[in-house]
Amino acid sequence: MSGLRFIFEPASVAVVGASNNPKKFGNIILRNILESGFRGRVYPVNPKERVIEGLDCVDSIPNLKEAVDVAVIVIPADLVPKVVRDCGQRGIRGAIIISGGFRESGERGSRLEKCVAEEGKRWGMRIVGPNCQGVNNPHHPICASWPLFTMKGEIAIISQSGTIGTDFADLACLDHIGISGIASMGNKTDVDEADLIEYFSEHQGTRVISLYIEGVKRPEKFLKALKGCPKPIIVLKSGRTNRGKVAAESHTASLAGNDEVFDGILKQNRIYRADTYEEFYDFSKALAYLNRPKGKRVTFITSSGGAAVLAVDIADRMGLEISPIPSDVKEMLKTFVPPGASLRNPIDLTGDGDSPMFRKTADLIRSHCDTVVYIFGDPIVGASGIVRRDASELIIFMGGAEVERKEKTLMQKMKVPVFPTPERGIKAFSQVFKFSSIDKVE
Amino acid sequence: MSGLRFIFEPASVAVVGASNNPKKFGNIILRNILESGFRGRVYPVNPKERVIEGLDCVDSIPNLKEAVDVAVIVIPADLVPKVVRDCGQRGIRGAIIISGGFRESGERGSRLEKCVAEEGKRWGMRIVGPNCQGVNNPHHPICASWPLFTMKGEIAIISQSGTIGTDFADLACLDHIGISGIASMGNKTDVDEADLIEYFSEHQGTRVISLYIEGVKRPEKFLKALKGCPKPIIVLKSGRTNRGKVAAESHTASLAGNDEVFDGILKQNRIYRADTYEEFYDFSKALAYLNRPKGKRVTFITSSGGAAVLAVDIADRMGLEISPIPSDVKEMLKTFVPPGASLRNPIDLTGDGDSPMFRKTADLIRSHCDTVVYIFGDPIVGASGIVRRDASELIIFMGGAEVERKEKTLMQKMKVPVFPTPERGIKAFSQVFKFSSIDKVE
Repeated sequence: MSGLRFIFEPASVAVVGASNNPKKFGNIILRNILESGFRGRVYPVNPKERVIEGLDCVDSIPNLKEAVDVAVIVIPADLVPKVVRDCGQRGIRGAIIISGGFRESGERGSRLEKCVAEEGKRWGMRIVGPNCQGVNNPHHPICASWPLFTMKGEIAIISQSGTIGTDFADLACLDHIGISGIASMGNKTDVDEADLIEYFSEHQGTRVISLYIEGVKRPEKFLKALKGCPKPIIVLKSGRTNRGKVAAESHTASLAGNDEVFDGILKQNRIYRADTYEEFYDFSKALAYLNRPKGKRVTFITSSGGAAVLAVDIADRMGLEISPIPSDVKEMLKTFVPPGASLRNPIDLTGDGDSPMFRKTADLIRSHCDTVVYIFGDPIVGASGIVRRDASELIIFMGGAEVERKEKTLMQKMKVPVFPTPERGIKAFSQVFKFSSIDKVE
Repeated sequence: MSGLRFIFEPASVAVVGASNNPKKFGNIILRNILESGFRGRVYPVNPKERVIEGLDCVDSIPNLKEAVDVAVIVIPADLVPKVVRDCGQRGIRGAIIISGGFRESGERGSRLEKCVAEEGKRWGMRIVGPNCQGVNNPHHPICASWPLFTMKGEIAIISQSGTIGTDFADLACLDHIGISGIASMGNKTDVDEADLIEYFSEHQGTRVISLYIEGVKRPEKFLKALKGCPKPIIVLKSGRTNRGKVAAESHTASLAGNDEVFDGILKQNRIYRADTYEEFYDFSKALAYLNRPKGKRVTFITSSGGAAVLAVDIADRMGLEISPIPSDVKEMLKTFVPPGASLRNPIDLTGDGDSPMFRKTADLIRSHCDTVVYIFGDPIVGASGIVRRDASELIIFMGGAEVERKEKTLMQKMKVPVFPTPERGIKAFSQVFKFSSIDKVE
């Protein structure tokens, strides 16, 4: 086993600082490892306890029965260098240091962090953190982090902020699309975004990689990782304004750098960039779950004229082609659409539109465009029954209240992403064209 | 009773086309009127039924016991002109025509709509619709619309799209802030945005007015209404691009007009404009529920460094002033914040930050800035206990999963708006400065 697989796919784990106090992270993380369905061996380490969460407790790393793959360390910062050395001596190759009190807390902490890094290097260890929220790999599975997310998906999150990683995973789980991994980087004393991009490049469960960073310390290594990654990477980088740069420096002592230079690097390497946190999530969801269309011709089918006008405005701005409806298709549509329906594109079935009408319309128009955009306005019962996982389709649902929530859940469980507003849906969808020659195919 | 009060605050209602079939709008609307808590008299009108929803049914308008304040009409388009005439003759002054099949459906429909308009004028009636989703006034209360929303709030929605009105109200009710009214305008054959702005200008429950339109037919009347309205108006107008204009014309035969001209008119009249549907909602929520600060100086208190950097980036772009923390305040903060905390602005309490720490920090800093921005990252138990309804505060909550959802609900029930991302929160908050001289006060 090489690289970071020790850390993300361990067969055995020690939790140093495991606790019986349910409020302490030493207990929360241990429970999450157990409750995430981890099938390997788990060793709580704490000199003051004999049994934690039903497991025999070991007093120290040297007394462990085996050299575990990874040690999760949740103890006061002062004690961490010694424990890292113990791990190295015991032959443990991976460590996740949750504890704070290092570089982010001043000079004394910086010295401690330096000791940790040196010990790690000396023994050939790989270290995530310190001052991080751990890692989660629902495909292994193991959740050496909090809160407990277990829903398997296809997006891996690498985050310099614990909160942003957590919020992203929470959104993905509420959306029933789940996650393929979370890596909270903390102070990045050893493992950084470049290592993690490399790891998730080869991670089978991961289809896209979503990266939140405030700055890059080792630009060459970062560039190499970007170039070597065959999967779409979506980046949200903060610290873009002058005041933001100062704040980023306070947060993780990151050098935010020149934003135009950074932007150029991303573009050259075909990396998707989000301007806001919400775009970060939407773009990731779109690139992970939307099928690639053959070209830019879209046809809107809607039951809401208003939502469709908003969709056309943004589609026009994003350079999509709103393709004409052939006259023979119009004739066939006339046989079943309601009197007030509009047969131009958007095809507006009006408030009388229902699922069977949407389906019949889509079947008629599909071969005349590259993507069918469904805009389900109002409660369209059975909407989930007509969308297709294997076609290029974009789903926007709004104004459907309880019916919308039910149908949306059903669709997203089938891995068909649903977007809540025309603007968010179209903007996310348009990303699939960004670095492709798709528009030249037609 | 004058103007539109017949329609929004009736003492008696007839539902023409009332039905016993729970799938028909003639039944759904009747039930919603009853279930919304309407305290007036309700008369189902249908020649084929004797009792509907437990109420005695009348066979026709001429046989009504009294001239009701408003007739809700849900019958085939062909029959509508006759019923409007009956209403006029019977002395009924208000009508809400739900039925479609008018101007939006072609020439025959246009002729029918013209008849309806002429009958209405002849008898001095005010008509909402046709082809609309009705009206809802939770403060009266009466919901002559669908779905049933009863949560009283302070935002009135005027919408040229039924779906957008419904989705907006649904968001507001999920957010526990409710609505003060919904008016679905449909074809605007008589009552239009100008009339409705005038009505809600004087409506006691309404603090802000949110208007979705695709075009304005009577610009002078519209301008007069804008100028006369003392409350903030937020406008979302679609049909801004060339393709969008064509779509708007298809939808409601609106002349979308020149967007720059429209934008100029809004600015001159101090009307807030949203670029996207989500901004439309966020800006409305901010303008209805945020207290007005004395100036642009903000202090961020956060438990998430990452979310704070995103917030600073957007705050810098929106022209907010990120005020320095006085050194005596820093000294006092040092007595209780965790070791890794940052005492610059943003004040970062780190992941160890909890409610009491947020409260103590806010108490120390409040007098040194105009607005305290709380960024609750992670599950901050008791967050709702520390925010203040009477101060200028902005609340952003993310990464808190179940705890976040619980605390957010508690806050919004107290009419303290909570925003889900730094960008959405700061952008919405910044609207309060748009047409004010607040920044010149300091």
